[in-house]
Order: sequence, then structure tokens, then C-alpha cells
Amino acid sequence: MATIEMIEAARDRLAGRVRRTPLLSSPFLNEIAGRRVLVKPECLQHTGSFKFRGAWSAISHLAPDVRARGVIAFSSGNHAQGVALAAKLHGIPSVIVMPSDAPRIKIENTRAYRADVVLYDRATEDRDAIGAQISQERGLTLIRPFDDPLVIAGQGTAGLEIAEQAAEEGLDAADVLVPTGGGGFASGIALALEAKVPRLRVRTCEPEGFDDVARSIAAGRIERNASHAGSVCDAIVTPQPGNLTFPILSRLCGPGMVVTDQEALRAVALAFQRLKIVVEPGGAVALAAALFHGETLGDTVIAVVSGGNVDSNVFEDALRQKP
Amino acid sequence: MATIEMIEAARDRLAGRVRRTPLLSSPFLNEIAGRRVLVKPECLQHTGSFKFRGAWSAISHLAPDVRARGVIAFSSGNHAQGVALAAKLHGIPSVIVMPSDAPRIKIENTRAYRADVVLYDRATEDRDAIGAQISQERGLTLIRPFDDPLVIAGQGTAGLEIAEQAAEEGLDAADVLVPTGGGGFASGIALALEAKVPRLRVRTCEPEGFDDVARSIAAGRIERNASHAGSVCDAIVTPQPGNLTFPILSRLCGPGMVVTDQEALRAVALAFQRLKIVVEPGGAVALAAALFHGETLGDTVIAVVSGGNVDSNVFEDALRQKP
Repeated sequence: MATIEMIEAARDRLAGRVRRTPLLSSPFLNEIAGRRVLVKPECLQHTGSFKFRGAWSAISHLAPDVRARGVIAFSSGNHAQGVALAAKLHGIPSVIVMPSDAPRIKIENTRAYRADVVLYDRATEDRDAIGAQISQERGLTLIRPFDDPLVIAGQGTAGLEIAEQAAEEGLDAADVLVPTGGGGFASGIALALEAKVPRLRVRTCEPEGFDDVARSIAAGRIERNASHAGSVCDAIVTPQPGNLTFPILSRLCGPGMVVTDQEALRAVALAFQRLKIVVEPGGAVALAAALFHGETLGDTVIAVVSGGNVDSNVFEDALRQKP
Repeated sequence: MATIEMIEAARDRLAGRVRRTPLLSSPFLNEIAGRRVLVKPECLQHTGSFKFRGAWSAISHLAPDVRARGVIAFSSGNHAQGVALAAKLHGIPSVIVMPSDAPRIKIENTRAYRADVVLYDRATEDRDAIGAQISQERGLTLIRPFDDPLVIAGQGTAGLEIAEQAAEEGLDAADVLVPTGGGGFASGIALALEAKVPRLRVRTCEPEGFDDVARSIAAGRIERNASHAGSVCDAIVTPQPGNLTFPILSRLCGPGMVVTDQEALRAVALAFQRLKIVVEPGGAVALAAALFHGETLGDTVIAVVSGGNVDSNVFEDALRQKP
């Protein structure tokens, strides 16, 4: 189980490696939201998403002889790039198993970080069997995307930064909105804030139709999504919350928030116009919740942006949304 | 004349008001440039450009009774927004004289910061006469865009941040590339670095056809541009360097660098893809110089991005440039 001590240890291992992302704001966004909105842009993190934090935390904690044999991950997106860069900077090999229909740019970026990318056919091949065989042959360690205490601890280092930055802003209470897929990011941040500034309270944010976390928190047990694809917010679409993340989310996070794909795209456009940052749709769901669903929120909201790895055609579609 | 003492005093007045922008980087950009490239994104500054620094510096230094009467500025762009927000935060009125054909979004933003926007017809009306009449009637103080020691000192606070951030990176020598219009930003940064880390040396960057600063530095006297419009880098197109900025640029800045509009647009697209920041073409000329004109540069370059106030149609054009 991840703890605040593990998060603080992860912060020490990440020192000098992770980028401390700033807090941004705009009076125009405050006006739309009807409250003060601070934005934590993890799109500016190395590899363009928070995933580098968890990947570095897990890889840096391995015993040297185990680490030297290398790591493996399954991912079509941001986790792939985070693991590939963290492995490269440790000077160890990485294998990333990706579906052959993953976006070309994400495959190319993962390769550019010197990962050995193994493609598989989603329709005909068994991803886990492929991964198990490669891992055994090469003695690789699996780096899970969220259901791993060391990964959760790494993501939680963003929560330590939020606690420090809230203090710099004179804040001791706020809603902290976090884009949520499997729940590693939200649960890590929630654990950090519980220890440091308990009146900063996390609310998970998801796209409509893929609100497994909101339903799970409400039901008190893990619920699954009916479908696995079909949202422009692909980066945070996962089948269900993790076995390790769900108890943390359930204990610490307020009612889950849900936004439409169109609201996420409008938030992408507003982040372009008002904050000058590039956000992927899935990374914009917390900002969308702050801007368009404020009814249950307090005076001040910290909206976390989880990533910015968006293809230019999707970004252009977002810019053409009516504001 | 601006001095390091004035820059440090401006920093004190800006404390808690200005955003300390981070240093960003990407291994992909390093590879294109053939050297280490660090990017200082002032597009993330309040109002989307560095101009807020100089405006706050000048307004905060006025005697309270003078300041209370209000300020006036001439600008079609980033200076307008910087002055308007700094005035609003001081609780004083501002008048911004803008050409009636300025981009609608910039007029609306300036009004949204509660400035009194006075439009004039470039073809038929005399901007200076309009401004002089309003200033006299209302007792307003003119805030110049660059040729004012307090404005230069404010822009120089970005140079103090660069000096600190270079030390954090273990750097004691680098080329510091700065987008340059009238020269307030480049001269302020150069003065700060001269005092703090003299081996961080500024090079001015301009778009082709509007290289008045490069030619002036080379000639040892102020040279003018042949034309006043026609570059996509409109934010940094000015007729000539300032009478106060030129002696500083001439003494402290290396040979000026020049990039094409197309190179600036490619840099906008690469900043989108690799850094997840929104940059306007004029704000991207230093990054373009670092990426595409490295022949005369050393191992490490700090490229300053000056602003991100770009219309979405121009941004979409940039994303469609071949890389």
C-alpha cells in the first residue's frame, strides 16, 4: 500500500529529474467558472504527461541487478513514453508492448526514447502472453501503469508540489480536480494532500460514458465501464479502477465529476487561448469540470492537467469548437 | 539609463505578482539543434507575454498621486494587455490607443482587463495627437513599450530568473537567444546577465526583412527597416531599435540572428509537439534560430519565447508546416 512516506521517498529519488510544473491562471477562466481556478499543467512534464513521475519512481527503486536487466510495460500512450524515458535515463533497456493501431506519433516517440517497441494485433494476439514470454526470456520487470504502490507514490509527488504551491498562494482549502483513468494519479495526489493539507480535497474527473471511478466511489465497490473505446479522451479511458487505487479513491476523494467530450474539447481550446498550453482532451477533463460544472465546488479550484500528447488534427478540431 | 540596481528593484516590486516561468527542454529539440536547448516560455506569463513585467515595473514606480490619475499606452498587441492588466491590478484607469484594424481578440482582451480602448484609423488619424490630447485632459502618464529605463528594468527581471535557473542547471556559459522588436526585452535581459553571469551572452533574433537590430549592431548606429508590415512575426516588427535600448544592445549583445517566417512557423509547430506550449510566430524566432541556425552557437542555448498571443487560424497554419 502506498503511504506518504513512500511519496516523500519518491520525491527524493525524483529530485533534479522531475520538472516542478507551475500553477497557471487567467482572469478569463475565473470569470467563466465563477470562482478562482488554478491550473497545474503536467503537460509540461517530461514526455508531456505526469506518467514520467511514476515510471521514474518505480524504476529508480529496483535493486540495481534487477534494474540492469531492464523493464517492460504495456501501453499505447503516455505510460509508454514515461517508462521509455525513465529507462533510457537509467541506462537500461525497455520493452514496450503496444497495439499496432496505436497513434503513429506515440509509437515513434516511444522508439525515439530508445525503447524496443513490440507491436501486437489487438484482434488476434494476446498481449499478456506476448509480454510474459518476453519478460521471462529477458528477465524484465513489469512496470504497471497504475496499480503499483511505487507508481502511485511517484504520481503523488505532484500532490506534494500542489501542497507547497497552495501554501505559496495562501490557500488552505480547495477542490483539487484530477483527470482519472485507473486512478494512480488521483490516489497519489489524494494521499499526499491528506498528509499535508487535508482541506485540499481531490475529486476525480472522467468523460461521460467512461465514469467507472465515479460510479465505483458512489457504489462503494469496483464498477466497470460498458465499453472500452469511443471517447476522444482516450488517454484516461480504462476498464475499471485498480484494486490498489480504488480503496484510496473511495476513502479520500469526493463525488466523481463527469464531463462530455465536447466540454473537454472546449477546455482544450480555452487552455490554448487563455493559458498558452497544449492539452490533450483526456488531460482537459478536470479543467472542463472546473469551468462548466462548478455547482458543487467551493471558492477555489485547482484543476490538474494530466497530459498534452495530442495529434494536431484533434487539436485543430478542438480549436474550432464554439467557446 | 537602466541599471542592475533598477532591475533588482523591479524584481522586488514584482514579487508575488509576476510568474516565475520554468525552463523547458526536449531531447527531440536537442537532436534537431545538435546541442542542448533550454526554453524560457514567457508565453506562460500573465497576459501571455513578458510585457506584463515592464508594465508592472513602470506603473508600480509612479508616485501614488500621479499613478492614481491613470496611464496611457499605444499598442496593437502584447504591450496593450500588459499595461491594461498591471493598471487593473493597481486599481487605476488605463487608456489604450489601438488601431481600429488590430486583431479583434487583442482589442477584446484589452477591454476585458478593463482598459478604456480608443480606436483610431491608421490611414486618416494621428495616433500621437489623439494620445496627447487624452493624456492632457485626464493627466495620464504614458507607458512606453520599450524606450523607458523602468520598462527595460522590468523586462530584465526575466534575466535574473535565467541567471538563477542557469545556476540550478549547473550552467555558467550559454548563448541566450531573445526575440527582439524595439529591444526592451533583450537589453533588460543582457543587463541582468552582465551583472550575474557574464558568460551567458544575449543574441538578438528577428524575422527576415525586419532585421533592423542585427543591422544596427553590425553598423554601430541605428538602422531602420525598409517596410513596417508583412511578416507573420508581427509582435516583434518595429521600425528601429530604441534610443535607450540600442547602446545596451550594441555593447552587450553578440551578432544578431535572423530567421525566415517559415522557420518561425516550424518552431511554433515544434513547440506545440515537443514542449506543449502555445507560441506566437514572433515569439518563436529565438527558438527557430536555436533549431535551424546553430552554426555560430555553443554547446548550450537558452531560447526565450516572448509570447503566445496567436489567433487559432495562424496557429493551425503553423501546425500544417512540414517539420
